[in-house]
Amino acid sequence: MINDLPAGLSARHLREDDHLRVLAVLDTWWGGLKAEAGARERALLLPRLYFQHFTTTSFLVEHEDGEVAAFLVGFLSQTDPETAYVHFAGVDPALHGQGVARALYRAFCTLARSHGRRRVHCVTSPENTASQAFHTRLGFTASAVRPHYDGPGLARVTFTLDLTQGTPR
Amino acid sequence: MINDLPAGLSARHLREDDHLRVLAVLDTWWGGLKAEAGARERALLLPRLYFQHFTTTSFLVEHEDGEVAAFLVGFLSQTDPETAYVHFAGVDPALHGQGVARALYRAFCTLARSHGRRRVHCVTSPENTASQAFHTRLGFTASAVRPHYDGPGLARVTFTLDLTQGTPR
Repeated sequence: MINDLPAGLSARHLREDDHLRVLAVLDTWWGGLKAEAGARERALLLPRLYFQHFTTTSFLVEHEDGEVAAFLVGFLSQTDPETAYVHFAGVDPALHGQGVARALYRAFCTLARSHGRRRVHCVTSPENTASQAFHTRLGFTASAVRPHYDGPGLARVTFTLDLTQGTPR
Repeated sequence: MINDLPAGLSARHLREDDHLRVLAVLDTWWGGLKAEAGARERALLLPRLYFQHFTTTSFLVEHEDGEVAAFLVGFLSQTDPETAYVHFAGVDPALHGQGVARALYRAFCTLARSHGRRRVHCVTSPENTASQAFHTRLGFTASAVRPHYDGPGLARVTFTLDLTQGTPR
């Protein structure tokens, strides 16, 4: 399903019973960022509905022992038949720099293209410079910071990837 | 598009530029519940993506002067071709008891059926007894309270409506 993962990792589509496991690793990976409030915010951004209704374009990467190594939650736009959207992706910090996120995005883009999608959108917070660098390396075009994009005080940088020239390498 | 709305109200599909307007009325309608933290939680539950990518099954009801009167955000499950999902719905408290929420749900169910969906799911918090009573009156079947359903500490009651017998009256 996903090529070029480091040895010992395997990928499959998300399932509903992955939900609490993914929320739990987020708290570890994000290093208790904003502690309780941060955990609550991540839970609200990733309600169970994504693990029920958007599994066919979402992936989980596991270690051989079944521990969560990475995930990507994305969907096909229902409004725009040419657009796909990556809502949330994360990789175990111990695996950073090994191409796991790139492999996940590549798999998502390949799937999106197979559904006739011509572009992928996603957003990140202005503070998340690592995410911005990653998306730019992958070929996404970034917007300027858009204040209050996701609500009052929730600024975002938006990214767009053109799929008509192929998927990221 | 939606029948049986009280005089002076009209409905259309959601648009992207409705996003901040809807978040703003939520703060008014929910009476500043949990104040700042509540506003943040509602914004995280309703990111802009719903107003971009799920507009075709989502509705806005406006007064003649264009003020927001009610809304419903829903989508067709991408995983299960027989399921549709209502993510968030709200009605101006000044309009409660006039059948606006019922009209919105009826419109959503009719649309879901036209896409071959056989059931509608949604969730609410255990504290929201008005929402539970509303869904039960409409014909939804309620679950027991499911602790940690949407994440640690986020209990939910889940609801299912069978569409194979028709849409709610």
